[in-house]
Order: sequence, then C-alpha cells, then structure tokens
Amino acid sequence: MQEDLAHVVIIGCGFGGLHAAKALRDAPVRVTVLDRTNHHLFQPLLYQVAMAGLSAPSVASPIRYVLRKQSNATVLLAEAQRVDPAQRMVHTDIGPIHYDALILATGARTSYFSSPQWEAVAPGLKTLADALNMRKRVLEAFERAEAQDDLAERQADLTFAIVGGGPTGVELAGTLAEIARHTLADEFKRIDPRSARVVLLEGGPRVLPTFSERSSERARRALITLGVEVLTGARVRDIDAHGLTYTVGDEAPQRLASRTVLWGAGVQGTPIATTLGLTLDRGGRVPVQADLSLANHPEVFVVGDLASLTIEGKAVPGVAPAAKQMGKHAARNVVARLKGAATTPFRYRDYGSLATIGRNQGVVEIGRLRLWGWPGWAFWLFAHVYFLIGFRNRLVTLLDWAFSYFSFERYARIISADDKREARMQEAPPSS
Amino acid sequence: MQEDLAHVVIIGCGFGGLHAAKALRDAPVRVTVLDRTNHHLFQPLLYQVAMAGLSAPSVASPIRYVLRKQSNATVLLAEAQRVDPAQRMVHTDIGPIHYDALILATGARTSYFSSPQWEAVAPGLKTLADALNMRKRVLEAFERAEAQDDLAERQADLTFAIVGGGPTGVELAGTLAEIARHTLADEFKRIDPRSARVVLLEGGPRVLPTFSERSSERARRALITLGVEVLTGARVRDIDAHGLTYTVGDEAPQRLASRTVLWGAGVQGTPIATTLGLTLDRGGRVPVQADLSLANHPEVFVVGDLASLTIEGKAVPGVAPAAKQMGKHAARNVVARLKGAATTPFRYRDYGSLATIGRNQGVVEIGRLRLWGWPGWAFWLFAHVYFLIGFRNRLVTLLDWAFSYFSFERYARIISADDKREARMQEAPPSS
Repeated sequence: MQEDLAHVVIIGCGFGGLHAAKALRDAPVRVTVLDRTNHHLFQPLLYQVAMAGLSAPSVASPIRYVLRKQSNATVLLAEAQRVDPAQRMVHTDIGPIHYDALILATGARTSYFSSPQWEAVAPGLKTLADALNMRKRVLEAFERAEAQDDLAERQADLTFAIVGGGPTGVELAGTLAEIARHTLADEFKRIDPRSARVVLLEGGPRVLPTFSERSSERARRALITLGVEVLTGARVRDIDAHGLTYTVGDEAPQRLASRTVLWGAGVQGTPIATTLGLTLDRGGRVPVQADLSLANHPEVFVVGDLASLTIEGKAVPGVAPAAKQMGKHAARNVVARLKGAATTPFRYRDYGSLATIGRNQGVVEIGRLRLWGWPGWAFWLFAHVYFLIGFRNRLVTLLDWAFSYFSFERYARIISADDKREARMQEAPPSS
Repeated sequence: MQEDLAHVVIIGCGFGGLHAAKALRDAPVRVTVLDRTNHHLFQPLLYQVAMAGLSAPSVASPIRYVLRKQSNATVLLAEAQRVDPAQRMVHTDIGPIHYDALILATGARTSYFSSPQWEAVAPGLKTLADALNMRKRVLEAFERAEAQDDLAERQADLTFAIVGGGPTGVELAGTLAEIARHTLADEFKRIDPRSARVVLLEGGPRVLPTFSERSSERARRALITLGVEVLTGARVRDIDAHGLTYTVGDEAPQRLASRTVLWGAGVQGTPIATTLGLTLDRGGRVPVQADLSLANHPEVFVVGDLASLTIEGKAVPGVAPAAKQMGKHAARNVVARLKGAATTPFRYRDYGSLATIGRNQGVVEIGRLRLWGWPGWAFWLFAHVYFLIGFRNRLVTLLDWAFSYFSFERYARIISADDKREARMQEAPPSS
C-alpha cells in the first residue's frame, strides 16, 4: 500500500459503508473503514435475534473477515465523534484521522421524537445490543409471570405492546404472538403463555404504510389470525415502566397495562451529522446533492439512512438496497473526483418491498407483482437468506430456521444471571 | 399436580440439578427447579464461546425446554440467597419457598484465592456472561493493537497470559494460539497477529495435573507446537491491568506485560453454602454424608461441584459426569427418604478424563486406554457433541465446528459498541 495514494475514509460499515468499501477494491486509493463495532450487521434479520430465533453471530459478520481479501482497505474499531470538513479530519476515540475523501455512512438510530425518556422503558431495535436487550425483556416477562401470584400483575407481565406498524413493528408483533402461542405454550406450569396479549399500535390508518392498501389489509388480517390485536390510528401519549397511554381519534385516553413495550416507531440520523455544520432535515438526516456529496464539500459523501435525497419528487427510502446502491455510487464518484472527472447523479433502482408477519405470512411488492401469505413468506425467506453475508451464516441460518419452522422451538432463548441483576437494579418505581 | 405431594426443591440447574430433576420424573413428588439463569449450560464447551468458535445459544438450552415434558416439575427463574434448614425454607429474590426435601446444586464459581481484586483484570470462565466477556477482551486486544502506534504497547496488547494449566487453561491457550496463527492471520494490515504471544502459567510442575505424566507431557508438547509458551512452576504474584508478575522457584520475580490475562486457576463453592450453618472445606464446598445428605439435615442433599465427598480415600472430582451421577443418586435417595426407606451411599463411576488442546490435539484417558493427538481429539469431539443437550444444538454445533475446522474461521466474533464504551470506562489507571 503506497502512502502517497489518496486516503478515503468510510465511517460506518452497514450496507452503505460496506458496499462503498467493496466498490473501491480496485481503485488507486487507500481505504480506511471505521466502525464502532467489529461487525457488519444484517439488519433485516435483527428482529429474529430480538425474538430468540437466531443467535447474534448468525446476523453479524466481522468486518475484517468480509474485507480480508481487499488489500487496499484497513479496518479500525473506532467511534467517530465529529467531522471537521474544513481540515478534512475525522475525530475519533482513537485519535484524529485525515482524509482526502470521506464517505459518511453511520445510518440512523432509534428516535423517540420529543420523548427521549421513553428510551428506558420502550427499547428500540437498531443494534445487536438492542436486540439482545429486547430478547432479555421478552423472555423475562414470561418468567416473571410464572412467579407472579397477583393476577393483574401477571396479566401486565403477559401484555406486550409494540409501538409502530412499519415492517419492524409488524415482524416483532407477529413473531411474539407465535412465541406465546407455540414456542412457549407447553413450557409453563402456572401460566398459559397462550393468554399473552400482543398489541400493535400504529398512529396512522394502516400497518405497513409504505405498501399498497391491499397489502396492508392482508398484513392486518394475518396479524389478527396470529392473535395480535391491531390498533390503527392509535397515538401513544405516554409510556412508563407499567404500561402506556394512547388515544384513538378524539376518544378519551386509554391505558394499557404492560411491562414490556417495544419501540418500532421511528428513527433519526446519527448524531455525528450535527457536526458537519449544515442544516439537517426533520429526521436529522443530511441533505445531499444529486451525486451524494455535500453542497459546500464535494469531497464529503453521505450515503444510506443518514442521507436525505429526493429524486423526481420521491424521497429515497431508508432501506438496505438503497444504502447499498448509494454506497457503490459514492465510491464511483469518489474515484471520479480524485481523477478530476465529473461525478454522476445517483439513481435509485427500486427492487420492491418485502415484509414478513410470521410463520408462512409474508408481503411482497415488486413492480406489479404481489405475493401474500405463504408464497410471500417463501420469497421473503429466500431473498433474506440469499443476501445474508458469508457462506456460514447463510447455511446455518437456514438450518436454524428449518429447525424453528418444524419444531416451533426458538433456540436462542438466553437470560443470564447478570441480565437479571441488572434488570432488577433498573426497575422503575411504580408510577403514581 | 397434587398440592399434597412432597415438595422437592432443586437449586441450580447445571449437570447435577438437571439430572436430579430428570430422575424425579416419575416420582410422586412436586419438583421446583430454581436457577438464576433460564438455561442449562453445557460448561465443557464454554471455552468455545469464550474463543468465538460457538455462539452462546449453541451451548445453552432453556431449562423449561429441557424439562417441558416433565409434568411434575415447575421451573422458576430465581436467585436463591440463603437456605434456612431449620424452617426448611429457601429464601430467593422472588420470595421464600418451603421444601420437604432440598437438592442443592449451585456448583462452583471462579476463585482468586486471597486476591479477589484480580477478578477485575483476570476474568474467569464459569458462566455464559464470563465467556462473552472473555471473547470481548480477546477480540478487543487485537483491535487495540491494530490502532496502536507505540510498539511496546502494541506488544502488550498482543500478549495473552493464561493462569492455570488445568483443562480450561490448556483449552484456552491452545485455541487462542490457533486464532492468532490462523483465524486472524490475514485480516490485519498494520499488525501480524501471528506475532501474538500466548503464555500459559501453571504453578505446579506440569500441565493437566490430574492426568498421567505421559499425557501431561504430550499436552505440553502439543501446546508448544501450537505456539504457546508453557511456564510450569510459575507462581503468579500480582496481576494488574498492564500485566502480571510471577516467580519460578527462587528466582527473582519476572514481569510479563500483557493487557489480557485470563484466569483458569481455581474455583470455590458458591456462596449460598455458607448459609447452611456448617463448616465448609477449604474450597468452600459442603461436606456431605455417603448418601450425599447433610449430617444434621437428612432432607438436604448437596451434589456436583458444591459437594465435598471422599470415597475410599479418593475425592470425587468436580467434573460433569460426577455431577450427573450425584444428581441422579440424590434424587433416588430423596424418594427413598420420603417413602421411609433407607438411603444408599453414592458410588462414583469414573469413565475417564478428556481434554483438548486445539486443532487435532486431544488427550483421553479411560481406564488403561490412552489416546493422544488426532485420535484423542476425535474422541473428545465425538463425546462432547454426543452429550450436548438437544438435537438442534448437536447438529448445528457440529456444523459450526466442521466450518471452523476447514476454514479456520470462527464465526462468533462480535464486539458491540456498548462493550467498547463500557471497556473504556472500566479502563484501570496505569499501575505505578
């Protein structure tokens, strides 16, 4: 590796960052990939970790392993704290790093809008740590119920509220209903896990709002068949350790006693965006030019969920395929710029949308193609296993699924003693 | 389940507790199994989790799942705090529980002898949380080295000290050497992981001291072939965040700069033993009668690593097969006592000893049979997969191993961002 080559720094190794790095494989540049974790996370399957269906390593590949054959790339475990575009520096917890071109791909994090205090009582699902935390909370709720003699408390332990009817909320709700009705059904002596309530609250008029109305309706029916209570037009007003309060239309606020509230309602850009010194959009995302660069810093590119871009009146969505495409495109534009050539505008190719609801229930929309129910689920499964990185993960993930499918068992059901102690210490005082 | 049946409480669901519970399957008793985690842990493979070869769920089965078909058993996630033998009560974090007979099977935990302060800098390996902590530390050490410019610091990051030459220490040292020499060898750009030092310190004259001298010697040679530095007769005098000090014989103390010290040197009985109100042995274990009961409380049985029992001059060892046999035997004696029949003395059947050193290197001693090298390793692998609980674990574990074996890759290599932040906060100040 020659030291006089231009230095391209990529911050974040999700779909955007990873595909940017790979696209630079044969470019005459030095690449440094920074991530605050050591792994690329296959986020579309993160809910399976949260719901104990897959182990954490099944959806995470070490970044070093993925990039091991790329001789021009160095991988560093580091947390980028701020960017100084004027000096072309990234400041990190392992020191400052100078760049000639920067690709910022740190993505989004869970947003609680104007209620950040809900984070403690309604965990979101963006990182592997989030997923393990969610898994712990769900499993502990059933354990607490088994040891609980007070019937009202027991029902609150067995009530799961999921806020947000997008793909994440729908996946969590459907899988949770399956766990209660099948996986755990015969394993308890004092409680009947089948009596657990799974309540999905969506503020808008329908679940899966980015899909067609017919698909939304199919998803809603599939959820109800699985035993999920679907509340649309339900706006969450407050969440605490004992449940949540919501309103539907102009009706009086209603209270749902639940000891496990899961959050799938919103994301915002990661905080590093605020250090770029420009005005962000409402979601904390960075407005980019058509070529994915910053208006005043053409050597800085932003890709994936952190980028805010509208093409012909349509916003590029915060989904994995868009992040991949943006990562590749930014890499090409970095090379063009370093050569002194013109950059090209990004074009988003929409390959369609997939979502799964639970066992045998999926929703697929690709162009005019619509698949629901079992065919949708099979397509979803095939696509996700195909895109999972690394031979090992793909094979074992398929086996895990096959096992879960036929046995209804979910093998990654772990609560450690430390978790339990910690949970006890974090227990909130009863609300007044 | 009839409420008037005698109530047998089992505390701890390792090998002893689990086999006690299973042996009570057809007995006319109510069984309650308490554990502070929700899983039975296959401890002989825990080092594989610590060394990123297996995921946590691969070596842990939910206790509820294992006992789901046993209609007379209730499983509760609870931490037993003390036993009150006079009142026949167990006090737990979910309230007091009365028993007619008690089987105490809480096992052992890591012991730092008279230096408990070493716990923070030299993690042990007893629980799943321990294993994940060890994995994190080892992976982070390589990551720190890659980002480190100071050569002395870098070498300290790449020096791994393992204290204790028993099976755990030998397994850790051998696997760690393999990781440095094969798994990670080509994944770093600034450091050569092959330059990592793995130093195994054993206080006694030979590694694997419970095996024959010839097997010990074979193990020592296998370790050296793998690249491990084996120091026997090396007594650790001090450990801090920057390394350890040790002496060999009467020589002057020597310093080993290492940022990663792993502890495999000793265990002691779990603290609940102290609440029984009797004198424990030096290792904090509970002296039991020949039938595994307490002298003054014949309705209380202690099994597994927590029990101290000598039969015909030989101490029953703290190994999984002994715990299983004791668990089963205690269950039989519980039933005998409740019937008013006589209990029988426990007899330990020694099926031999197995240890693994690393790739293709195992040590097996069964009666007069001795297997070393590849045959020893194959036997060890077969035996461990066979005894792994649950069909799924067995199959996928075998696949994981097959994958690791042919690829040298270890798939469970995960460091989360939270880990990193936490590690930074816990960073010890430089020693003076």
